[in-house]
Amino acid sequence: MSNFGFLHLRVVNPYEAGFREARSAVGAAPLLANAEEFKSVEEAVADCSLVVGTTAAQNRELQQPLKLLQSASPLIRKQLRCGRVALLFGSEKRGLSNADFSHCHWLLRIPTREKHLSMNLGQAVAVCLYELARSMAPERKPKAAQQDPKSDKPATAGELERITSLLVESLGASGYLKQHSTIQEEKIRRMVRRLDLSATDAELWLGMLRQILWKLTRDGSQ
Amino acid sequence: MSNFGFLHLRVVNPYEAGFREARSAVGAAPLLANAEEFKSVEEAVADCSLVVGTTAAQNRELQQPLKLLQSASPLIRKQLRCGRVALLFGSEKRGLSNADFSHCHWLLRIPTREKHLSMNLGQAVAVCLYELARSMAPERKPKAAQQDPKSDKPATAGELERITSLLVESLGASGYLKQHSTIQEEKIRRMVRRLDLSATDAELWLGMLRQILWKLTRDGSQ
Repeated sequence: MSNFGFLHLRVVNPYEAGFREARSAVGAAPLLANAEEFKSVEEAVADCSLVVGTTAAQNRELQQPLKLLQSASPLIRKQLRCGRVALLFGSEKRGLSNADFSHCHWLLRIPTREKHLSMNLGQAVAVCLYELARSMAPERKPKAAQQDPKSDKPATAGELERITSLLVESLGASGYLKQHSTIQEEKIRRMVRRLDLSATDAELWLGMLRQILWKLTRDGSQ
Repeated sequence: MSNFGFLHLRVVNPYEAGFREARSAVGAAPLLANAEEFKSVEEAVADCSLVVGTTAAQNRELQQPLKLLQSASPLIRKQLRCGRVALLFGSEKRGLSNADFSHCHWLLRIPTREKHLSMNLGQAVAVCLYELARSMAPERKPKAAQQDPKSDKPATAGELERITSLLVESLGASGYLKQHSTIQEEKIRRMVRRLDLSATDAELWLGMLRQILWKLTRDGSQ
């Protein structure tokens, strides 16, 4: 909840021992300290204008509309503009009862595979809130991406050509290319273009190849 | 993992007691029974053509491109059509190390709020796999792409690691790398991942580097 910015936890008849233990969860202490306790679902959702129950919909005759998370998400966000929304989760073991469902406007299900429908409670909450947060705000670009080595200026054709020459010479000096051949050289040239080098990486390659070529030819053997 | 149909778990040096205890997770018994254990990240990802590290990107200077989950997902799905993809998670406490990161092509982050970046491990895995499964709907491959040399099968992590080793050895033999340094080696490893090599080009590079290294060391001078 805290990760995705949902800061209002309401709990209905929590198992006191477990609830107190949970207060130590990393980073979520303020959220848990502010959690409100209620005696019944009815009281807990009283001030909400939309109540959505969650279910794996396993072997159950459902009396309410069931939506998949992805299509439920925009409806919940729309409602959040004008009122409070309760997203209701049941206990780890039994989920929500039909009585709990009766307080819900509709139900939602996380699309899981047929053979393994039921999810861990904490993971189900994380996935639902991720989906809600996902389309809440325009995606901001993470800061570190500015350092993305691929995203810096691409190498120029001139730099690529110098890399090509150094590589061809090194391959000649090492005996990989037996004799000068335009076909081989063109193959190397195309291969260097496929590397899609940034200007920074191109400089790195130039330095490495210069040193390798220097060493290969300084020793002077054929 | 099992909820979203990702059935291949690989673990690197698991804490044995905890790992065995986990075998009791509801519904996931077959997945855990089939989990493969490895001694190192290198071995665990060797047959993968894309390795993606996960990070909360907290207080850390990242050396690799960082993408948000939502934009990372289509790239991962695309790669899954032609090879294996490793999604790498660190331990609950410390996450992935810079050495672990050096085996990754790029990194991904789940967009969480500034004040609470770091997620619980199980929840982070659930959210990532939900996002991947979310849009798994069949994508059609455009026909012309088949002739693009970049679109042939990508190199595996094992091939990239062999290229890295040969390059590091060649740079050592040429005098470009003065002495063995883990930081330098990780820098080269990351650079090799940025080349985005196809399997065909990886083979070409392996051949070239083997010959260059042979020549550099046969002449035996320092």
